[in-house]
Amino acid sequence: MCQLLGMNSKNPADIGFSFAGFRARGGLTDDHVDGFGIAYFEPTGLRLYCDNRAAMDSPLAELVSQTRVKADNTIVHIRKSDDQLLSNAHPFTREIWGEAWVFSHNGKMTIKDAADSDPIKQGKSRHYCPVGDTDSEFAFCYLLNQLKEQFEYKPDARTLYEFLTVQCRFLANYGLFNCLMSNGEWMLGYANTLLFHVTRQTPFGSAALIDVDVTMDFETVNETDDVMTVLATTPLTSDEDWQQLAVDECIIFAEGHMVYQDVPTRPVYLSIEEGLKIAKNA
Amino acid sequence: MCQLLGMNSKNPADIGFSFAGFRARGGLTDDHVDGFGIAYFEPTGLRLYCDNRAAMDSPLAELVSQTRVKADNTIVHIRKSDDQLLSNAHPFTREIWGEAWVFSHNGKMTIKDAADSDPIKQGKSRHYCPVGDTDSEFAFCYLLNQLKEQFEYKPDARTLYEFLTVQCRFLANYGLFNCLMSNGEWMLGYANTLLFHVTRQTPFGSAALIDVDVTMDFETVNETDDVMTVLATTPLTSDEDWQQLAVDECIIFAEGHMVYQDVPTRPVYLSIEEGLKIAKNA
Repeated sequence: MCQLLGMNSKNPADIGFSFAGFRARGGLTDDHVDGFGIAYFEPTGLRLYCDNRAAMDSPLAELVSQTRVKADNTIVHIRKSDDQLLSNAHPFTREIWGEAWVFSHNGKMTIKDAADSDPIKQGKSRHYCPVGDTDSEFAFCYLLNQLKEQFEYKPDARTLYEFLTVQCRFLANYGLFNCLMSNGEWMLGYANTLLFHVTRQTPFGSAALIDVDVTMDFETVNETDDVMTVLATTPLTSDEDWQQLAVDECIIFAEGHMVYQDVPTRPVYLSIEEGLKIAKNA
Repeated sequence: MCQLLGMNSKNPADIGFSFAGFRARGGLTDDHVDGFGIAYFEPTGLRLYCDNRAAMDSPLAELVSQTRVKADNTIVHIRKSDDQLLSNAHPFTREIWGEAWVFSHNGKMTIKDAADSDPIKQGKSRHYCPVGDTDSEFAFCYLLNQLKEQFEYKPDARTLYEFLTVQCRFLANYGLFNCLMSNGEWMLGYANTLLFHVTRQTPFGSAALIDVDVTMDFETVNETDDVMTVLATTPLTSDEDWQQLAVDECIIFAEGHMVYQDVPTRPVYLSIEEGLKIAKNA
């Protein structure tokens, strides 16, 4: 299985603090060691690094730790799998309507086992095809093919968000499917098992990471109009009020704030232990 | 203007020696300081780094200098332009038929000035659209749109090479157009003004870089069955037999060897001075 980290902010922000804890799960406090990747949507474009090495060993991850890139949207992925192929490293990216979209998945799907007549196998090669051999990239390509078929031009935000929710729920029929996705304007989180988020804004407090012995006073590094939301598979800090997504909830953030939320009528929240157990058994 | 560097090899090879000289042109021996990028086709996938900083200043370029990535195909670009936007940094990449393709351009085109009725503006958004605002990315998207329209599936090599030659010559109608392109199997070079190549194989000699005081004895770093071809806007070494592409020549290398060449009937070869002057005045 893998783990996801994302940040959406009002002003370009540095994910360094969260990354310090998250990176540790790529070989130090956890065993997501089969790849690492980060996508930064900086104000002037997308910066994307992928490696097939563990985050704790990767020179790219070390560069991320040492540099202070500020981005409006950042997605990080640490991978646990049966292979260490570079072509299978997340995040994946494709261009649609002249925008770079980025996608990372956590979970194990069964798309490859689906019959050729199954809806998910239809239109596979219309526009987007996977380059690697993961179900994750297949799912991303499926979703983009659906979008491109349905909308010749980018639809309004509400239409887009609802369409993406439907697509995520459809994909969740094919196995364990938690994801983060961004086009640089907004960040989508979809939970099939575990995904949490926390928003930081004035008055800023401080927080201590769970995975490494680092504490940050956000007051000292932010301006009063800064707002940022961090999403992660499981909480990264021990002393903040992380909100959990329900099973099959879809949520979207823009400029640090929640702008869309679709929670099932009877929401179910898994404990972290239940969620991790499902992931381990998948 | 920009400069191009590429390497195609039989076995995965390290571009470090050539990069040491080429990087210097990004701020030390020349002024291509508005961006830097490198695409490595490693045996297990594409590794792509882009930066909007000069190669001499970029932490990514420093990482490239310090690590010894071995790839079958590598494309490097140093950019000189009016902007330093990350979205305009080369190489560009897109997926077609489930393959990652990479493209870098050297030159100045006038696509943006073309009328909407001009052939190059047709089919702009069918499959691929530029994310940034360079004519270079537009040209790459145009070429891929033509490919995708013409071939539902990847054609045989000869058909593909001839089609790409036609497309490059068409694009050269819209200004100065030198390019390198690769899908990880082969590397295409197209010269509108300046592009040179040199093949290294047994018996290996040694060579001295022009831009920095570095000499390499290739015998000590290669196996007897290694074969590699380096392409560059202008020669990187002073003591090797660099071959020049004619104006409007298209050439393709695979496994280190030339596998395709289309030279105009009456080939014209510009002197480096002429070529650089055309670039400066573009």
